[in-house]
Amino acid sequence: MSHPSTAVLHNIATQLRIDSVRSTSEAGSGHPTTCLSAADIVAALFFAEMRFDPLDPQNQDADRFVLSKGHAAPILYAAWAAAGAFPREQLLTLRKLTSDLEGHPTPRLPFVDVATGSLGQGLAAGIGIALNARRINSPSRTYVLLGDGETAEGSVWEAADSGTFHKLSSLCGITDVNGLGQSRSTMWQHNLEPIAARWRAFGWHAITIDGHDMNAILAALAEAKSITDRPTMIVAGTLKGKGVKLFEGLDGWHGKALKKGAEADGAVAELEAQMIKTSDPAPVIPKPAHRTPEGPVTDFVKALRTPAYKLGETIATREAYGTALAALGALDKRVVALDADVKNSTFSERFEKVFPERFYQMFIAEQAMVGAAMGLASRGAIPFPSSFACFLGRASDFIRMAGVSELGIKVAGSHAGVSIGEDGPSQMALEDLAMMRAVPNCTVLYPCDAVSTERLMAIAACTPGPVYLRLSRPKTPVIYQADTIFTAGGSATLRQSPNDAVTIVGAGVTVFEALKAADDLAKEGTRVRVIDAYSVQPIDRDALIAAGRATGGRIITVEDHYAHGGLGDAVSEAVWDQGFRVERLAVREIPRSGTPEELLDKFGISAKAIALAVRTLLGASQPIARAR
Amino acid sequence: MSHPSTAVLHNIATQLRIDSVRSTSEAGSGHPTTCLSAADIVAALFFAEMRFDPLDPQNQDADRFVLSKGHAAPILYAAWAAAGAFPREQLLTLRKLTSDLEGHPTPRLPFVDVATGSLGQGLAAGIGIALNARRINSPSRTYVLLGDGETAEGSVWEAADSGTFHKLSSLCGITDVNGLGQSRSTMWQHNLEPIAARWRAFGWHAITIDGHDMNAILAALAEAKSITDRPTMIVAGTLKGKGVKLFEGLDGWHGKALKKGAEADGAVAELEAQMIKTSDPAPVIPKPAHRTPEGPVTDFVKALRTPAYKLGETIATREAYGTALAALGALDKRVVALDADVKNSTFSERFEKVFPERFYQMFIAEQAMVGAAMGLASRGAIPFPSSFACFLGRASDFIRMAGVSELGIKVAGSHAGVSIGEDGPSQMALEDLAMMRAVPNCTVLYPCDAVSTERLMAIAACTPGPVYLRLSRPKTPVIYQADTIFTAGGSATLRQSPNDAVTIVGAGVTVFEALKAADDLAKEGTRVRVIDAYSVQPIDRDALIAAGRATGGRIITVEDHYAHGGLGDAVSEAVWDQGFRVERLAVREIPRSGTPEELLDKFGISAKAIALAVRTLLGASQPIARAR
Repeated sequence: MSHPSTAVLHNIATQLRIDSVRSTSEAGSGHPTTCLSAADIVAALFFAEMRFDPLDPQNQDADRFVLSKGHAAPILYAAWAAAGAFPREQLLTLRKLTSDLEGHPTPRLPFVDVATGSLGQGLAAGIGIALNARRINSPSRTYVLLGDGETAEGSVWEAADSGTFHKLSSLCGITDVNGLGQSRSTMWQHNLEPIAARWRAFGWHAITIDGHDMNAILAALAEAKSITDRPTMIVAGTLKGKGVKLFEGLDGWHGKALKKGAEADGAVAELEAQMIKTSDPAPVIPKPAHRTPEGPVTDFVKALRTPAYKLGETIATREAYGTALAALGALDKRVVALDADVKNSTFSERFEKVFPERFYQMFIAEQAMVGAAMGLASRGAIPFPSSFACFLGRASDFIRMAGVSELGIKVAGSHAGVSIGEDGPSQMALEDLAMMRAVPNCTVLYPCDAVSTERLMAIAACTPGPVYLRLSRPKTPVIYQADTIFTAGGSATLRQSPNDAVTIVGAGVTVFEALKAADDLAKEGTRVRVIDAYSVQPIDRDALIAAGRATGGRIITVEDHYAHGGLGDAVSEAVWDQGFRVERLAVREIPRSGTPEELLDKFGISAKAIALAVRTLLGASQPIARAR
Repeated sequence: MSHPSTAVLHNIATQLRIDSVRSTSEAGSGHPTTCLSAADIVAALFFAEMRFDPLDPQNQDADRFVLSKGHAAPILYAAWAAAGAFPREQLLTLRKLTSDLEGHPTPRLPFVDVATGSLGQGLAAGIGIALNARRINSPSRTYVLLGDGETAEGSVWEAADSGTFHKLSSLCGITDVNGLGQSRSTMWQHNLEPIAARWRAFGWHAITIDGHDMNAILAALAEAKSITDRPTMIVAGTLKGKGVKLFEGLDGWHGKALKKGAEADGAVAELEAQMIKTSDPAPVIPKPAHRTPEGPVTDFVKALRTPAYKLGETIATREAYGTALAALGALDKRVVALDADVKNSTFSERFEKVFPERFYQMFIAEQAMVGAAMGLASRGAIPFPSSFACFLGRASDFIRMAGVSELGIKVAGSHAGVSIGEDGPSQMALEDLAMMRAVPNCTVLYPCDAVSTERLMAIAACTPGPVYLRLSRPKTPVIYQADTIFTAGGSATLRQSPNDAVTIVGAGVTVFEALKAADDLAKEGTRVRVIDAYSVQPIDRDALIAAGRATGGRIITVEDHYAHGGLGDAVSEAVWDQGFRVERLAVREIPRSGTPEELLDKFGISAKAIALAVRTLLGASQPIARAR
C-alpha cells in the first residue's frame, strides 16, 4: 500500500488545525497552539503510517498512539473523528460535562489506552504497551507523541533507559519541538541536534526533521520501522500555533483559546486558505489482521491452590508474595511482574525464575516501572510492579493517573513501616496507605501472614482497577488456616468474647501486637476484641460497627504507618455515624534506626502501647454507645 | 597547599574500609561493599580536596559533601570520624537506637545537610546547595557522590538539566560505577564512556577514571575545579567490595555485613595488609574563611505589610500568592522561589520580576524543584517551590525526605480540586492534602481568600520544617478584614448563633459553599455554624470540639479533595474522643471535565450538597452529644 499524497496529508493536517481552533473556541478554553504544532505529525501518523480500525480501536494488533502531551487533546479527537471513529460535529462538545471529549484524554474514550495530561508519562506507558505487544507476539507498533517541554521530566529518561534495555524497536517516539513551554521558552529551544544527542546517549536511534515537512515526517517514520534493535525518537522542529499568524511561534499563547467569533473565524479562514487543491485519492487506513482474543481472565480466587503453609510457621509476607506471584503466573499468561532492582528483597525473583520472559527489570526507576505497568494493564496484561513501599512514592503521580485511567495495576510495596528496623526512616514506608487510599478506586490490601498474602493476591489479580498490597519485612507466624476465605472489603475477628471492653483493629505486623496485648490484658481480666483489617480499602464497615457496638463504642486502631491517611482514618470514617470513639495508635514523629521491637515500642504501636491505651481508655472514659 | 601523598591517602582509604567493615559487622547489618568501592574517592575528597572544619561543619564557606548513595553511610561516618568530628569508637554504635549514626544519614548529624537513602535525590539537593552558595556569594564547592545504580532514577537527569541551565560550575558529581545494583548488574555495568556520554549530552563536563587510582581521582577533581561554565561529573570505575577478596566485584553481596568474628576479622586483616609503610606527613584539612552569618531570620508575621485587599474584592488565592511572595522577598534576601514552568499560573512570576537572581526556573521537573529547595533550605534559604498541586505528587518522595530532614521548604500547590473545571482530572489535585498531612512535621495551610493567603504565607515563612500552602484557581471574594490575625493551628468561625444545629467545616473554595449553604438553610430556619479550617495541620482541636459540643455533636466537613487523608480525616481525628458524628463531604469518584460550578455540585461539595447533608443529618439523627 502506498501513502496518500503529501497534498492530501497536508490538507488533513490543515483540517485538524481548523478543528482544533474551532473546538477550543467553542469550549472557551484549551490548547490550540500545541495542537497546531503537532498537526502535520498527527496527520502523517493517522493517515499514512498507522494500521488501525477506527471502529475497533482496541483490536490487539492495531498500532497504538499515546498522546503524551495530553493538552493537545483537541487534535487527538479531531484525528479520530477524521478517521471515522465518531462524527466531527461532536468535537464541539469539547470540555463539556456531558462529553467524554475532556480537556485531557482519558480511557472513557475507547481509543485512549492511558489518560495523559500529567506530562512525562506517555513514554513509560508506551514501554508497557510495546512490552505487551511483544508478550502476545503482535506486530503492533507503538507511537508516542511528546512535547519538548515535558522531556524535562525525569520519568521520560527512565523510560528512555527502559526502551533501550528491552530493545523495543516497535516503539517510536516523536518529540514535537515547538520550543515553547507554558511560561517561557524551553531549556533546549529549537536546538534539535543536542536534543537528538541526548536520545542517542540513552541508546535510542534518533532522527531530526522539520516537523512541518510532510515528506521528512514520512521518511523518518519509515526509517524508524527499519531499525530492529532499539527504539527510535524522531526529533521534529515545529512552530507552536503553526498556520495562524496571530500566535505562530510566539510566546504567551500557551493554553489560550481564540475568542469565538471574529478571532476564531479569522484563524479558520487563514487555515482554509492553506488548503491545496488536489484530486489525489483520499487515504485508506489499513486495518489490522484479526487475532484470536486471549479469552476470559482466570478466576484466580478459585484457581489458586490452597496455600501450603502450616499454622505457626514463620514467614515474611514479602516472601509469601514472591511464592504466590509465581503461582499466579502459572495460572494465566497475562500475569507479568516488574521490578525496580529489589527482586531479592520482594522475592519477585521467584516469578522471574519460572517466567523470565514475563518479568521486566526496570532498574531503580519506579516511575518507569509503574508507567510500564499502566501500559501493560491497558492492553490486557495483569501487571504486578513491586518495590520497597516507600519508593513507590516516586511513582505517586503515575498511580494517581492509573486511578484516573482505572487501570488494573497490582502494586506491591514491601518493607512497610518502622518494623523494618535498622535501615532507618529513609527506607520505611509510613505514608503509603495515605497515598494509595487517596485514590478513590484503589483497593488496598494488607496481609499479616503468608496464607492471607496468597489469598489476597488472588483477589488482587481478579479485582478491576488499581490494587495495592502492603507487605512487611519481618517474619510473622501463620495464623490463618489454609482454607480461610478472604474478601475485598472483609476482615477477620481473631479474638472475641461476650465481655469485650474495647475493639482493637490492626493490620499487618500490628495484628500480632494486638494479639499479644489481648493476651496480656486477659491476664488482668480485661477482654478485648481483635480485628485484622486486612482489607483497608474497602474496609469492613459492618464488622467494625458490630464490634464497636459490642465494646462500648471504644475502638483503638494500631498501624505501622503515620497517623494520617491510614488505617485509623479508614476505620474512623467507616463508623462515622455511630458516635464511637476511635483512638489511633500510629507513628507520630520521624522515626530512626533501631531494632524492629525497639521501634514498635518507641513509636507507640507495640503490644505494650496497645495495652496501655486500653487501660487508659477504660479508666478515663464512660461507655458512649451501647450494644444493641 | 599541596596534597598529602598518595600513600597517605591510600592508607586513609584503607582505614575507612576497615572502619566500614567493623561498624557494619558490629551492627549485624548494613552495606560494607558499597563503602569499599567508594573509599578511595571519599579519602581524596575529605583529605585532599575539600575545605571544611570538622568541628564547625555548618560553616557557610565550607565545601559541602552529599552522600547521594546513602546506604554507604558507614564510610561517611568513618570519614568524619577520621577528620576529627567525633571519636572513632563511636562508629561501633552504628544503627543502634541510641546513636545518631543511623542506617542512612540524616541531619540529626551536624555534618549532614539532607537525609539520603532514597536513591537519586542527592544531586538535586546538591543543585540547591550550590545555588545557595551562589546566593550568598560563597566560594563553597559542592560534591555529590552517586551510585551508578541510582542514575536510573529520572530525578538524577532532572538535576542534570538544572545544573547545566544554571551553569553550576561549583558543583561536582562523582559516580561510583561499581557496576552492581542490589539484585543484579546495573544496566550500564562498567561501560564508563557511554555513561560519560550521557552526562555530556546533558551539558556537563565529564571525566572517566579508575576510581581506585588515587592520582587519577586527584587529577579529575583538579580538572573539575578548572571548569567555569558547567558542572562536572567524574565517572569512576570501581569494584564493589574493593580490597576484600571474599566479595570484591561479586554479585550477591549487596547489603550484607560480614559476620562478627572470624569473617570480619579476616577481612580487616586482609585490609590491614594493604597499608603502605610511609613517613609522609599526615593530611591537614584546610579550614574555610570566617564569614559573617546572615543574621536572624525576619519575623515575617510582624514585618509583612497589612494586605491591601478590600472586602468583597475577588481574587484567586494563587494570585495573592504571587503578590505576597514578592513582598516576602523584599523583607529577607533568604526568601527564594522555584518554578516548574507554571509561573504565569501560580503568579510566582511576580517574584521573578523583582528578584530574578533569587528565582530559579527548574522547568517541568518537580523532583529537581523540590530537591533543590531542600538543598537551599539546608543552607539557610527560605525556599518557596510552587507548581500545580497535582504535579507535586511527582516530588512526593522528596517531600517525604524533606520531612525526614526537617527542612524548611515552603511548598505551594495551585489549582487544587475539581474547582479548576474544564481541564479535567489530570490537572486536579485531589490527594495533595493526604500526601502532605502524612508527613508528620508538615504544616498544612489552606487559605480561602487573598487576605488569609498573605497572612498564612508570612506564617509559612516563619514556621520551622516543611509547610504546604494549598491554593485555588477560581477567584474568590475577600472575606477577612486586613488586620485579622491568623495562626498555625488556628481557625475562623465565620457564622455562629446560639441555635446552631450543625457545624460545617470548610477550607479554601468550600468555605464559600458552606457560607452559601448557611444562608440558604437560614431561610428555612436552620442555623449552622461555619468554620474556616485554614490550618489543616495542625488543626484547631479546641475550636472544633467547642463547635461540635454546641451543635449536638454534628459536624459536616466539606473539601475539594478526595475523601481520604484530607480535611475530613483531620477534623475527625481532632475530635476522636468526643463521640461526635463527623460526616465527610468530599470527591468520591474520579472526576471529569466541566465548569467549576457543575463539578462542585456533581461531586457533592456544593452549597446545595451541604444543605442536603444538613437536612438529612437533622432528619435522620438524634443529638448524640450535648452542649455543656
